[in-house]
Formats: sequence, structure tokens, C-alpha cells
Amino acid sequence: MLDLVIIGGGPAGLTAGIYAQRYMLKTVLLEKQLVGGQVQLSDVIENWPGIKSISGMELSERFEDHAKSLGLKIEYGEVTGIDERDGKRVVKTTDGEIETRTVIVATGARPRELGVPGEREFRGKGVSYCGTCDGPLFRGKDVLVVGGGDTAIKEAIYLSKLVNRLYVVHRRDQLRAEKILQERAFSIENIEFKWSSLLTRIEGKDGVERAIIHNKKTGKDEAIEVEGVFIFVGIVPNTEFVDVEKDEWGFIKTNQRMETSREGIFAAGDCRATPLRQITTAVGDGAIAAYMAEQYVARMG
Amino acid sequence: MLDLVIIGGGPAGLTAGIYAQRYMLKTVLLEKQLVGGQVQLSDVIENWPGIKSISGMELSERFEDHAKSLGLKIEYGEVTGIDERDGKRVVKTTDGEIETRTVIVATGARPRELGVPGEREFRGKGVSYCGTCDGPLFRGKDVLVVGGGDTAIKEAIYLSKLVNRLYVVHRRDQLRAEKILQERAFSIENIEFKWSSLLTRIEGKDGVERAIIHNKKTGKDEAIEVEGVFIFVGIVPNTEFVDVEKDEWGFIKTNQRMETSREGIFAAGDCRATPLRQITTAVGDGAIAAYMAEQYVARMG
Repeated sequence: MLDLVIIGGGPAGLTAGIYAQRYMLKTVLLEKQLVGGQVQLSDVIENWPGIKSISGMELSERFEDHAKSLGLKIEYGEVTGIDERDGKRVVKTTDGEIETRTVIVATGARPRELGVPGEREFRGKGVSYCGTCDGPLFRGKDVLVVGGGDTAIKEAIYLSKLVNRLYVVHRRDQLRAEKILQERAFSIENIEFKWSSLLTRIEGKDGVERAIIHNKKTGKDEAIEVEGVFIFVGIVPNTEFVDVEKDEWGFIKTNQRMETSREGIFAAGDCRATPLRQITTAVGDGAIAAYMAEQYVARMG
Repeated sequence: MLDLVIIGGGPAGLTAGIYAQRYMLKTVLLEKQLVGGQVQLSDVIENWPGIKSISGMELSERFEDHAKSLGLKIEYGEVTGIDERDGKRVVKTTDGEIETRTVIVATGARPRELGVPGEREFRGKGVSYCGTCDGPLFRGKDVLVVGGGDTAIKEAIYLSKLVNRLYVVHRRDQLRAEKILQERAFSIENIEFKWSSLLTRIEGKDGVERAIIHNKKTGKDEAIEVEGVFIFVGIVPNTEFVDVEKDEWGFIKTNQRMETSREGIFAAGDCRATPLRQITTAVGDGAIAAYMAEQYVARMG
């Protein structure tokens, strides 16, 4: 039987793995798709302390290498639920069951859909949730970015270098992103801001041809000719599979010890109800969750 | 007037500084002695995600460089208190006063004294709280390490390479340190463990000559001839200067938003009441504290 199953291989899960290996817990990290999590999709990271600038891909690889160098076992599979049996946890996956004393849920989050007509229809045909993944497909074309937070503005800055003209559509009259990102974005000539506006519809034939936006102040609609629509309007936690106490958006509630409402189950990183979601906060969560798992295992004997 | 004063230049303070600069808060970081904090004193760090092994000195320098590259202003001075005036914070230092909207207390902690006869008398004459600082003075000599946690065992492993014979005196019959550290220490030939034992007295003339230890199980005392005594029995938070709610050991109580009991004052890192004190947790705290400070400043206008 295992001491610990870590679900999710982003910064929180990998850091939990690094700590768990140092505590010599018998651990497996389960990842659904690609180790690295959302960080992997980030073009450039400038706020990971000690490194002025690094690609998300490279930072992810460094985390993964570190965890593997300590012998962390990484397996691939999708978790469908966590049961209890004789005071132990049973992690149910699409491939079977795994018995473990403790579990750390570090499944992160995924981009939130806007929910407008055309969004699903043109997904992969002009509608995207990842600039670094799909940006190169829009070289020299006109695109539109929806959102005003850190991710939206970072992605707009990145995309502006590839595309011809870029529109940022934001529902408020100012951005929420870090000021340093705002200043950069405002200084870029081919970015145009559409303030107090909502994207209401995406139209086209084989691919995106135009976006319809609605200005809340003037009440007027406008059609903007673009071939790409990038949507960055928040995230949804990947927590549907686990039955623990959550907040109204589905983020897992924990105390400062990363303990969830169920014994032996901890949560860490973006899937957790927390005031800020960053790589820095994910690694802090991961370390604490692994430490508390170790303490739990030691107590249980 | 400033938006933010960060007190302390360890990983928590420097990360808060990196984030504050990106939020474009008008910020000053105040440091009493040396930027870097306790990390600087660490011989080798192996659990900072993405770097398999690095000296504390070098990691500190990378954090400092990163913060400075973003324009963080670092000043030297000792803080004696934090007052309120007209809804603002007034940071009192030995050099005067600084007005600011918000404060982040990231002052860390210092080694705890054991409180035995001879400890103060021989401080700097054989009694030390830092292996990397003072270890080289004991090359080829016999020394004693008190403690059984991560720091004690890491320092014992480091010192064992320099000294002739090394005794680890621990009050319990097993270590509390990470298992990976325990295994390493147990495999080192010139380390001898004195279990269930207390250091009760340090004796000598011009410097340390011997340590008296008491075995709690046998009830017997033993004199061990050593020229160095390294004490690692926990930490004391550097929080005496600030009047906020603290736990019984003086660590500052906060919620998950790093808010203390006083408005506009946040705490981050080792000085905070938290289940685990690591570089990973310090940077998470620092990021959240800076974010909440930014939110506070934005709300106040």
C-alpha cells in the first residue's frame, strides 16, 4: 500500500512530490495528460523568484527533472473518485484502484468558457484558450482577446508580436492585470482596447470570420473582422471528481494546513480556495500538503 | 508617501518586493543586516523546486538580483515599531519615521538559545548557531551538535566533513528531520548519536573544552571533550517590535490572506504562525501579502 497519491503534476503536485521523496513516503504522482500543468502553456514567466525570465515549458521541465531525480514515480491516468475503506483512501482511476494512506489533490484548473454562440462550434477553428499553443497559426492575421486579468494581458502582449492587429475586449473600463503588464500593453501600437464591452457572438463559415461585441455604455453592437478569438476569462477548478467541501465556484476549501473536509485528503495549488493563484503559492501549498501527509502517516503508524 | 514598506529581506520579503514592483506599488524594503535572511546561512539547499542543489548564498543572491532588476528599493535600518496616524501606517526606525499605506512584516526568525550555563559565556568562543558560518574554525577538531530537526541534521552532515568527531545530542530517541537526511546522517562514520540526552552545561577556560550531557533514560551524566558546540533547537520569531496578535511563541497570527489583527499590516514567511517554514512557503506567503497590499491600496485610493 502507498503512503501518498498526488493527483496532478503541476507545480503544486511536483513540489509535493519533491518533499514526499525527501520524507521517504511511498508515493505515486498521477497525471492525466502532461506533467507541468498550466505553467507549461505560459510563454514567459517573470515572477518566479530568482529567475528574471523563463519559458513556462522550461520551468516545468526543471520541476519535473528535480522530482524525478529524487525518484518520484509518475504514472498516467485519470482519477474518477476517492473512496474510503478500512480507514484508508482508495483512489479510483480509469485503470483500476490504488490503496493509499493519504491523497493530495493538486489538479489545478482549466480555462473558463465564455458561453457565447459560436464558441464551441469554432473551438480549434479560430477559438483558442492558449496563446502560446495556437498563436503561431495567426501570424499576420487580426485577432481578438477577451479578458482583462494577468493571463489575458500577458497573452495579448505575446500575441501582438505575431499578429497584425489585436483587439482586447474587456467588460470593465480598466484592466485588472498587474500594472507592469498594463503599461506594457498600453505601449504596444497594434493593440486596440474595446472597453466596457462584451463578446456576444462568434461568426464564420469554416473558421472564425468575425466577432460581435456589445458596448455596455453606448448600448451599440459592433462587428470586428478577426480570424482568431482568444478567451481568458478566468478558470474552473478540476475538482468535479472529488467529494469534499468546496466554495461556490468549486475550489476546494482547506485550512492553513491544506486539510480538506475529509481525513487524509489534502489539497494544494490552483484547485484550492485561495486568494491568489501563482507558481509561488502553488509550491508553498505543495510543500505544506506533503508535510501534513507525512505527519498523518507517522501518526497512523 | 509610500504604498508599502516591507520589513525584512529574506525570501518572503524579496518575493513580496518582486510582486510589489510588478504591481507598481511605491515600495521600500527595509533590512536590518544582510539581504537574504536565514537562507544565506544554509550550506546547501536541495528542496527549492527546479534546482537540485544550490548554496543558500547563491539562491539568496538570485532572489536579490531579481528584485533589484525590477527596481525594488532596499534600505538598511532597524524597525522599532509601527504606529497608526490618519488611517496610515507609520514605520518607526532607528533613523526616523516612514509613512506608508501598508506594511508587510517579513522579519523571519533567529536561532533559539538553549539556556544552559556556559552558552552565553562561550558564544563566539566555541558556541555557535551556524555551521556554515563557523564550521571552518573547527577543522579536524571534535564538536557536538544539539538538536534533531532538519536544521540540526543538515548542519551535522555539513560539519562532519570538516571535523574529526561529531556528536549529535538529541532529547528524544529518534530524529524529527526529513527521512532522507536521517539516512544520510546514519551512514556517516564520524557522527555518533547521543539519544535521549540533554546538554546541561558547557565548560572551558578561554574557549569550549567540554560539554556535559545528561541521559534521561539512565539518569547518568557524561562529559564529552569537544571544542565546538553547535545549537539548533528551534527558532524565535523576530516580532517583538510589532504589536499584533501572536501565538504563544510570538509568531504572528494571520488568516489565509496574510492579514494580521491590524488593518494594513500583513505578515509573511517564518515570522508567521504557519505549520511549515520553508523557502517554498515563504515565497507563497510573500506573493499573497503583496497582492493583498495592492488590493488594500487600490481600495483606499
